[in-house]
Amino acid sequence: MSGLYVGVDLGGTNVRSGLVDGEGNILCRDKRKTLARESAETPVRQIVDSITEVVCQGKMNLSDLTAIGIGSPGPLSGKKGMILRAGNLPHWINFPLAEIIRERTGVRTWIQNDANVFALGEWWKGSGRGLDNFFILTLGTGIGGGAICEGKLLTGFNDNASEFGHMTIDYNGVQCWCGQRGCLEMYSSATGLVRMTLEAVANEHIKTPLSAYLCKPEELNSYIIYTYAKEGDDFAVSMFDKAGYILGIGIVNALNLLNFERVAIGGGLSRAGDLIFEPARRALEERGFQSFNRDVSIVPAELQEDAAILGAVRMVIEKAEE
Amino acid sequence: MSGLYVGVDLGGTNVRSGLVDGEGNILCRDKRKTLARESAETPVRQIVDSITEVVCQGKMNLSDLTAIGIGSPGPLSGKKGMILRAGNLPHWINFPLAEIIRERTGVRTWIQNDANVFALGEWWKGSGRGLDNFFILTLGTGIGGGAICEGKLLTGFNDNASEFGHMTIDYNGVQCWCGQRGCLEMYSSATGLVRMTLEAVANEHIKTPLSAYLCKPEELNSYIIYTYAKEGDDFAVSMFDKAGYILGIGIVNALNLLNFERVAIGGGLSRAGDLIFEPARRALEERGFQSFNRDVSIVPAELQEDAAILGAVRMVIEKAEE
Repeated sequence: MSGLYVGVDLGGTNVRSGLVDGEGNILCRDKRKTLARESAETPVRQIVDSITEVVCQGKMNLSDLTAIGIGSPGPLSGKKGMILRAGNLPHWINFPLAEIIRERTGVRTWIQNDANVFALGEWWKGSGRGLDNFFILTLGTGIGGGAICEGKLLTGFNDNASEFGHMTIDYNGVQCWCGQRGCLEMYSSATGLVRMTLEAVANEHIKTPLSAYLCKPEELNSYIIYTYAKEGDDFAVSMFDKAGYILGIGIVNALNLLNFERVAIGGGLSRAGDLIFEPARRALEERGFQSFNRDVSIVPAELQEDAAILGAVRMVIEKAEE
Repeated sequence: MSGLYVGVDLGGTNVRSGLVDGEGNILCRDKRKTLARESAETPVRQIVDSITEVVCQGKMNLSDLTAIGIGSPGPLSGKKGMILRAGNLPHWINFPLAEIIRERTGVRTWIQNDANVFALGEWWKGSGRGLDNFFILTLGTGIGGGAICEGKLLTGFNDNASEFGHMTIDYNGVQCWCGQRGCLEMYSSATGLVRMTLEAVANEHIKTPLSAYLCKPEELNSYIIYTYAKEGDDFAVSMFDKAGYILGIGIVNALNLLNFERVAIGGGLSRAGDLIFEPARRALEERGFQSFNRDVSIVPAELQEDAAILGAVRMVIEKAEE
């Protein structure tokens, strides 16, 4: 495939852009802090500046671009090119981002949910290469998901497919901020790990240095729990084990519906490695409904920061061909 | 669309066939008892006889057929045309059904999971007409599912997508026969309704005529509970309410992943109507993760017995065009 594209990964913290060719090679990169709270205009200007920057780095002009793809927090409508609302971008409500960027750059622009472009990127050039049925999830403050079904990104009726973090796995379980009970995110995200740890040290007669955080719970984070687990604290290890095992139950639920070949895990908490992966794999082994589902592999995501840039480009390559 | 097809609905109880034109009109029908336990050959002969019967009724010859489609219990491989194993067809293990039917009839034949062809049929001519993203579930002894995603049947890596009944909705819940705990099927199927009812009358001080079944639990079935509920027994109503509400939680989980516009419910237990639909809709209202998901409608399936025949035909129309 030929052509020249810019992929933009619009996050709450950073705007990242990449100039990318049709084969998925990132030729130039740009990264700048997201200034989302000032006005609706500021992040628009940042996106345009970042796109212009990578095009200039590549000694090209905007008119050389085939298309621009943007991965953004949502909910959004990819079909309408509109951000409906996004927690970290308070001035953008029913905001026609794709059209605005097209007007400013003169280049056709599409937008898509950040977790979905992450999935597309990992499928194109990372942990899902060559697979027709692939699922990816990201473990961070929350839990995101993205699915490739029969070689196509699953977007659904209004681009809200693969909302993995709010799957109920205990209908009588703890209250989630979303209004449901027992959402996966309450157990297996970084936030969920901290929540479970504080709950456990409060209720049980457990010897762990983590008990010290009972009087300063706001200082506890998943990296601290990780550090103690790595140092051999059995309690800290058991918290990762619970988070990973419950994650594995969620994966089995998704697998039963989507019947994928492989699931990849990315995001900050996935760097805990076997502390998360081993119990997740054990859950799949013990809970996988049918024997052939047990052959599904759970692997780490490969591309990390580049995944969303590449996925945003992959999306527009397909759109531009339509 | 032109062409002439036979759709076969191979169930544990009956083999049903229909001669169907390319527009989805059923021209002739046949139905006969499934004799699955005698030998591997008996149900093959029944299928061929049933196909021949509807073709003769229509005053046509087998050579006039464009293709044959069969919906069968699974697990099976649609790509290989092979039944891997099926509970009600004990002689069929790794059984190349599609090839055998093609050899006997001279007509190209494809097979697919029964719940999936049911979904295709309802999408083509029933409750999912005109929708690109549609989900259907069947409530019977177990719970089946089928999904249309962006205008295509979701089959997955090995034709086992939409295994809805074994979704964990309480990871510490009751043990399921499949090895997991807290599967949806343990609450919201006909079997699950009976199980919950017997559990409740044993453990609680409840006044209900259903207590009489404590000493003859094998005589209780979902129709009896339905009859008492219709007569106004509050306890019986509350059991349907629980089954329906938990079903709604499962629907929300599926919705979060697949982002469909509409879900239809078929199968024997769906005939309980509002006793099941009202609490399921309440769960969607209360638990739907995002406001736009709450607009999804939960409706009854429309075609009942014809759905699988039509879906099997719809499947082969698409295959024959490839």
